Amino acid sequence: MTDPARAGIPEDGRIPRYYRAKRQILALCKTLGEGVALPSERQLCTQLGVARATLRQAVLQLVVEGWVDSRQGSGSFVVGRRKIAQHLGSADGPDQDALTGRTWTTFERRRAGCELAQELRIHRNDSVIHLECVRGSGNEILAVESAFIPAKRFPGFDHAPVGNRSLHDELRTRFGVSFGGADQGTETAHVSPREADLLGTLPALPALVVHRTSWDALGEPFERVRTLYRGDRLTLVNRLGSVERRPEHEQAENRSSSS
Amino acid sequence: MTDPARAGIPEDGRIPRYYRAKRQILALCKTLGEGVALPSERQLCTQLGVARATLRQAVLQLVVEGWVDSRQGSGSFVVGRRKIAQHLGSADGPDQDALTGRTWTTFERRRAGCELAQELRIHRNDSVIHLECVRGSGNEILAVESAFIPAKRFPGFDHAPVGNRSLHDELRTRFGVSFGGADQGTETAHVSPREADLLGTLPALPALVVHRTSWDALGEPFERVRTLYRGDRLTLVNRLGSVERRPEHEQAENRSSSS
Repeated sequence: MTDPARAGIPEDGRIPRYYRAKRQILALCKTLGEGVALPSERQLCTQLGVARATLRQAVLQLVVEGWVDSRQGSGSFVVGRRKIAQHLGSADGPDQDALTGRTWTTFERRRAGCELAQELRIHRNDSVIHLECVRGSGNEILAVESAFIPAKRFPGFDHAPVGNRSLHDELRTRFGVSFGGADQGTETAHVSPREADLLGTLPALPALVVHRTSWDALGEPFERVRTLYRGDRLTLVNRLGSVERRPEHEQAENRSSSS
Repeated sequence: MTDPARAGIPEDGRIPRYYRAKRQILALCKTLGEGVALPSERQLCTQLGVARATLRQAVLQLVVEGWVDSRQGSGSFVVGRRKIAQHLGSADGPDQDALTGRTWTTFERRRAGCELAQELRIHRNDSVIHLECVRGSGNEILAVESAFIPAKRFPGFDHAPVGNRSLHDELRTRFGVSFGGADQGTETAHVSPREADLLGTLPALPALVVHRTSWDALGEPFERVRTLYRGDRLTLVNRLGSVERRPEHEQAENRSSSS
């Protein structure tokens, strides 16, 4: 993780209290190491000479940035695990996935409305099927995904895929849909109360939202998907260009990998 | 913008006060329309029956999501402009850019340190050149970018590019570096006080951070870049797959595009 511009310190050198506290706690995390509990709020406030609200602002930012895990009632811990890299997708589609676990939570029909109609090139009064699932890795839930597909195109599709199966697998095997391409947009947004519930995380935590419209091999749009990823646990990765990076083993010697 | 899962409402139906207020203010924004001022904090608190802290939490989320523009001392306004789409890059490189404006703010040498050394395949005691710029579109500053390049590889490089010129242009024309590829990671992070200063925005606003390591046509890494984008103003877009989407004019008739 490269530092923010000039260590985040403004030209005038005035550093807000929460930001100074944040940097001090971050240094403390690095000293304590993975899995170790931070001192109590009260102790930290005294040690750093800040009010509780200031301390909480600092700690919340460190939670969002993946340095600290804060559990209600049981204090805060230094997190050692790195963020999980989730691919933004490739020519083969969006599903070369770090998040292999999937539990379907919703299957319903509703009227498309204008925005979905435009994306899916259907009429706004047409029906869409809305499928929602939570996705994760191991025991951790890391994303909530809502997909909308035009009902008319998928007759007889009347329940969510079974178990862990992806929607793309289902559409390919049952309806012969093959992935042709997609446009994606990535934004930052806040976790809604429902999403916080599903993710088992704090409400209002910043998250990454990816909106995707996919089309089939004929260029016909067949789904609109919104995926909300936990911002504190995931990095979305993609690769540019056609040349491979020089292999690691050719690197110069005498390099330390510690930080 | 597709709605959050099931309109954000948890299964138990209990909606936090700030979230109810947020949804009410969002509905109000849609009624008022672009450019119109929202009622004062005091009025909104009375109207919605919430405390000032609750109202501020709701408004801050709407600022982050690009619905409201909040200026100190002059109240809050409904924002009509859509977010700007910034490409995450293509085979040709990262610079097919919505952010054409660029002002260089820093040119300095420093020791690489471990993390940069590893990315750039140099020794941790080697020098890197750090170039920082702010980037924007029209009069708006939308991003802060820090690039680190190995000093040894670019002898005689002793000041930032002139004017609006990009670092890639500079490295190509002066040193014959052509872009081969890059790995990118996108995360959510908070704007540091310095970055808030440079962007003219609120500190602690959620932002999108893109980290990139680029290599040349021989696969040799030549830069590590951290770009912080305003989360309230930008969407990062990318395209997957090899098939084009069916052209718009083939769409069914009787479609409304209003929302």
